[in-house]
Amino acid sequence: MATKDQSDDQLGRARVRDNAELQAYYEELAKHDTAALWTVANDIEPWHPTPASDAIIWRHKDLRPHILAALDLVSPEAAGRRVIYLRNPKRHEVSAACGWLFSGIQVMRPGESAPAHNHAASALRFIMEGAGAYTVVDGHRLSLGARDFVITPNGAWHEHGVAEDGAVSMWQDGLDIPLTNALEANFYEVHPDDYQNSNTPMDASPATYGAPGLLPAKESWGAHYSPLMKYGWDQTYEGLQNYARVSDGDPFDGIIMRFTNPLTGGHPMATMGAQIQMLRPGEHTKAHRHTGNVIYHVAKGAGHSVIGGVRFDWREKDIFCVPPWIWHEHANESASEDACLFSFNDFPVMEKLHFYREQAYAENGGHQQITSTA
Amino acid sequence: MATKDQSDDQLGRARVRDNAELQAYYEELAKHDTAALWTVANDIEPWHPTPASDAIIWRHKDLRPHILAALDLVSPEAAGRRVIYLRNPKRHEVSAACGWLFSGIQVMRPGESAPAHNHAASALRFIMEGAGAYTVVDGHRLSLGARDFVITPNGAWHEHGVAEDGAVSMWQDGLDIPLTNALEANFYEVHPDDYQNSNTPMDASPATYGAPGLLPAKESWGAHYSPLMKYGWDQTYEGLQNYARVSDGDPFDGIIMRFTNPLTGGHPMATMGAQIQMLRPGEHTKAHRHTGNVIYHVAKGAGHSVIGGVRFDWREKDIFCVPPWIWHEHANESASEDACLFSFNDFPVMEKLHFYREQAYAENGGHQQITSTA
Amino acid sequence: MATKDQSDDQLGRARVRDNAELQAYYEELAKHDTAALWTVANDIEPWHPTPASDAIIWRHKDLRPHILAALDLVSPEAAGRRVIYLRNPKRHEVSAACGWLFSGIQVMRPGESAPAHNHAASALRFIMEGAGAYTVVDGHRLSLGARDFVITPNGAWHEHGVAEDGAVSMWQDGLDIPLTNALEANFYEVHPDDYQNSNTPMDASPATYGAPGLLPAKESWGAHYSPLMKYGWDQTYEGLQNYARVSDGDPFDGIIMRFTNPLTGGHPMATMGAQIQMLRPGEHTKAHRHTGNVIYHVAKGAGHSVIGGVRFDWREKDIFCVPPWIWHEHANESASEDACLFSFNDFPVMEKLHFYREQAYAENGGHQQITSTA
Amino acid sequence: MATKDQSDDQLGRARVRDNAELQAYYEELAKHDTAALWTVANDIEPWHPTPASDAIIWRHKDLRPHILAALDLVSPEAAGRRVIYLRNPKRHEVSAACGWLFSGIQVMRPGESAPAHNHAASALRFIMEGAGAYTVVDGHRLSLGARDFVITPNGAWHEHGVAEDGAVSMWQDGLDIPLTNALEANFYEVHPDDYQNSNTPMDASPATYGAPGLLPAKESWGAHYSPLMKYGWDQTYEGLQNYARVSDGDPFDGIIMRFTNPLTGGHPMATMGAQIQMLRPGEHTKAHRHTGNVIYHVAKGAGHSVIGGVRFDWREKDIFCVPPWIWHEHANESASEDACLFSFNDFPVMEKLHFYREQAYAENGGHQQITSTA
Repeated sequence: MATKDQSDDQLGRARVRDNAELQAYYEELAKHDTAALWTVANDIEPWHPTPASDAIIWRHKDLRPHILAALDLVSPEAAGRRVIYLRNPKRHEVSAACGWLFSGIQVMRPGESAPAHNHAASALRFIMEGAGAYTVVDGHRLSLGARDFVITPNGAWHEHGVAEDGAVSMWQDGLDIPLTNALEANFYEVHPDDYQNSNTPMDASPATYGAPGLLPAKESWGAHYSPLMKYGWDQTYEGLQNYARVSDGDPFDGIIMRFTNPLTGGHPMATMGAQIQMLRPGEHTKAHRHTGNVIYHVAKGAGHSVIGGVRFDWREKDIFCVPPWIWHEHANESASEDACLFSFNDFPVMEKLHFYREQAYAENGGHQQITSTA
Repeated sequence: MATKDQSDDQLGRARVRDNAELQAYYEELAKHDTAALWTVANDIEPWHPTPASDAIIWRHKDLRPHILAALDLVSPEAAGRRVIYLRNPKRHEVSAACGWLFSGIQVMRPGESAPAHNHAASALRFIMEGAGAYTVVDGHRLSLGARDFVITPNGAWHEHGVAEDGAVSMWQDGLDIPLTNALEANFYEVHPDDYQNSNTPMDASPATYGAPGLLPAKESWGAHYSPLMKYGWDQTYEGLQNYARVSDGDPFDGIIMRFTNPLTGGHPMATMGAQIQMLRPGEHTKAHRHTGNVIYHVAKGAGHSVIGGVRFDWREKDIFCVPPWIWHEHANESASEDACLFSFNDFPVMEKLHFYREQAYAENGGHQQITSTA
Repeated sequence: MATKDQSDDQLGRARVRDNAELQAYYEELAKHDTAALWTVANDIEPWHPTPASDAIIWRHKDLRPHILAALDLVSPEAAGRRVIYLRNPKRHEVSAACGWLFSGIQVMRPGESAPAHNHAASALRFIMEGAGAYTVVDGHRLSLGARDFVITPNGAWHEHGVAEDGAVSMWQDGLDIPLTNALEANFYEVHPDDYQNSNTPMDASPATYGAPGLLPAKESWGAHYSPLMKYGWDQTYEGLQNYARVSDGDPFDGIIMRFTNPLTGGHPMATMGAQIQMLRPGEHTKAHRHTGNVIYHVAKGAGHSVIGGVRFDWREKDIFCVPPWIWHEHANESASEDACLFSFNDFPVMEKLHFYREQAYAENGGHQQITSTA
Repeated sequence: MATKDQSDDQLGRARVRDNAELQAYYEELAKHDTAALWTVANDIEPWHPTPASDAIIWRHKDLRPHILAALDLVSPEAAGRRVIYLRNPKRHEVSAACGWLFSGIQVMRPGESAPAHNHAASALRFIMEGAGAYTVVDGHRLSLGARDFVITPNGAWHEHGVAEDGAVSMWQDGLDIPLTNALEANFYEVHPDDYQNSNTPMDASPATYGAPGLLPAKESWGAHYSPLMKYGWDQTYEGLQNYARVSDGDPFDGIIMRFTNPLTGGHPMATMGAQIQMLRPGEHTKAHRHTGNVIYHVAKGAGHSVIGGVRFDWREKDIFCVPPWIWHEHANESASEDACLFSFNDFPVMEKLHFYREQAYAENGGHQQITSTA
């Protein structure tokens, strides 16, 4: 079936010419809390999405001193959580890093702890550095090592801290707070006892649910989110390497895997997904675009991405975002080392609501023309 | 577990006092597209949702003359669709009737037709009056009778018209256009042939999928939405009456049923649900509140609802909305006639994203104090 | 991919020639409760199934006097249930009508009742005649009218009776007792109070769950089986007629619909499915074969089926069976009246265990040569 | 609700006394392929299952010489597969090891290969010894190391062999051939090219699908069975040890995990499940019984099980079975070494058909009286 041009001057689009009679009519309609659809139809029914966020990179070397400065400026008890958040220039109003996703960097020093609370927004962590950090999620105690990925689902009590004999610890937080607020569904509670006082064995969740192709035969789990709450970096990186040995990789994303709820094979949480991908030495992927927001964290290596024609060079611990329906491609600049990108997204929302679409960049061998450098 | 008071002046909330050093720090952060979470935390993590829309009623007697006026002011070909939409005072920016839901009233005269298009937003219709109206959804031809409920799912080609020998026809449209736009996922296409030119038997969908407890044994259906695309009023009303004979009804909603996809028992479409409820003569339900937006259409009878303490009197063909987390209760004022409310909602979104919450009004025997009348 | 001939004298089949040394070896193996696979491999891994049951017809005119005779010979209290069961000549050992399916005809006179019990086997009823008959399934009271279809799922308490002012009532029972026994999973309980003493409204189940495309919005249902427990004939027959108006029908089965659990779209019970099909005047379907057993009950009209080359003429209330992987086709002999076949089957077992296969008869225009008449 | 005694002499059971009139009646019924239900009701509706198989142990030291003898007696080409199967004394007729499960021990020498075929029955392997063995399942090449668990699902082409430089290799096969035959659903095909000639990388399946909590983000998999086809022993044993560190274990089974399809969290195949369990030094579990058949293979260590009051002592590579609804408990006799039991079962059938039931042994502290030793 042939596709028509995307012109607003054709049958099937609103093409009403304004006149005085219509103006009077519109004023009358407004008095009754109504309006004529054809005055807004072409705006609210666009041919395709136009991104509401900027593509942007937050470089760790720029942010690090300011994040550390917070250690002396506020306590976790006063701040609730000591987090510097990433603020997209186009999304100040909703405190988002990209689209409806929030992200920030949390920093704690040894002996500190932040009190327990829960909210309808879901959260995840990707650990950047430190020693002795831990989180407690609905009573499940989890240690936080570098590049570990940890979830804090919708409604789960959670608190964080660093052991007395640990080191200053830092991690990226990702939350769907803006989405939860936009959908008018956010709720917040502080823990009646301030802290959960859990005595369960540390890291029981990955010990129970983190064996490949195996699940405990007789544990019951009624929650809608993953019982595997921590995905350790060593196993994740080993998984990438194993997969790379037998796969050509995806043209747009190289060796890419998604974190799963092992009970279902689906996303770990209801609203956010997470992925880890490896760009092999010298690999330069082709461009594509899709609905859904993605926030990347450079877990390992150095390279660049081209997003909407703009080149973003990145290295370890840098964070950047790709808004919906923008062409993007990734390149590992090293000829000898792999580069790994952790990312989180709102793909579960896109998939469940049947809003996911994807398109390959057809021209120029699949590569965009670079128009500028960030 | 005891619940703590919802005060922002306690451990677990942001309680940082401003000072000059912090001000300087915030300015520095802003230069790097960052900010301190504790400056916004209590705002973006509220104790509970605050409605972003007004509760409002659109009375048919007020709207009707203006809707009919459109017949002479614009043609369907020029307008795309001849629709007067309902504009919530707080949601002008996104053209919504309530929350992220759009609604309007479409009117067509005999012999008119609106061309075929599709969009990622989903649509539904509740027929108000007329004769000879029809819609064609992905080639399925459906006749539109008074109080019938018809769906037009995400991505399905659709067009509407009224037969030459019909009458002026009017129906309420409901769409998730604002949601689809907010999620940056809207796409639009006009049909390459302007119209679908389908010759399938009229109303084959309900004839095939509309028998109670029966499905065609050998038809295949790959779509994510319901193959039953039209829910005729006669069967719907009979279903309510049958259910009423054996049920005490729900304390908050009386005799209430949801429209389903008979292949799954779930909602007919991915993003919007619909319900029909009957308030028996003299019935006055108790108040509750829940997440999710609901737009009601009075299908039959007369009564009133109390929404957030405000009394809204309604009669047939009136439309009103209940925003999220607002107390509401309904009353049938007749001692002899039942009253029926058709409604559509974004509950599928709330449920799939695990955002649905509900609470009963505990005080005063479950009834709100009326503070004003709309 | 070319398919090889089904000869046992080829690579991939057991072709070991016997000799004295092997005979001695086999005797030694037997001492240790072992044997050589190749001695049985071709038998236990056949090229395709060979039916374990005979195709057979039970004609109502032959059975009726004997069924009625039981009224005077035994009481329901002494018999448990007054049922004459259909005994396949090849399945005497497991008391099956076909494969692992049991079927019988139950008869009760006014004022009689059979006490409540439950079993792991599932049951269904297709009502043949009478007045005032009822069943009580897990407290749900259901009236039994001619040609109604009613379920009694695995584990549900059930009892039957006929009102004092009713008439002698007769229905076909279908159960998976042989399957349940073969899988060593049958359990039986008699009700501690002999009868359930339920006071719920009669036929509340179809009143609540039997509206097309509608489900009660707020009822909870935790069971694995259908909450719709009775499928009334009037609605079923109307559904067939509606579907026939817009469908060409299936080449092998005409206008065929399956009974469903409206909460899931799946089969009403875990192990047995049921279907209703209409052969239009003069319709003669093509032959096919499939795995799974089917027991047919002629609900309306007269015609014949050709099963494995044998012609079976049938009329109303006759019962016949089609064992797995046997060619079969159906014909309505009337030029003016439709013919309707109710049937039940073990398709849920075939589907869940991924054992369902189907094949069309390719030769002779899709029709078998008739070799004999039953 | 009080439970009644399980006596056949009560209301709710068949209690018809025989007499001459009834005898004549039964003879008349038999002429019409019918019979009276009450003559068999108590037999076909038992209070609970009675096992159709014997509990039995096959000790490796007894079987091993006979299995090796087969190497010289038949070739894989002539035998199809060189397998000595385990024959339950009560199940000779259906060639089953227990219930409807087949099991055998396959043995191959270096350089041998068995040709490719497929069947509707599902298969699994648990490797006992050897070097250089491999299997090819629907083109996926898998190496077979000691104690690895490998699946060959319903309908998948498969072939086995041992490399020229390998060693004599031996593994246990488990299949549901008896079930597939009982359900009249078995089909068999030999490969048109005798062998699959696959060049895919060895062990690509576990490299792709065997990372904990990770799945390839962009692979598609349409089959109903697990894409993870090999569960390597090292990871499995590590999983058991990790789980043991944080769990008290199940009272009836110690540290027990089930093998899963990582795409769904369910069983790897449609009809058979598999588990691995660790009995910690000195652990003696309590007795329980359940529906479903289980065939155990001692993967590691030594101990005993008490099954139906009979003590079965076992050591590595011994195989034993537990038929349905028989009390059983397990004991590790070592005070220092753990013992591991691999097992496979028909639990997927029990679960899907809603036939699974379980009961704890209430008396004597949960331990049976030992009445004899096998």
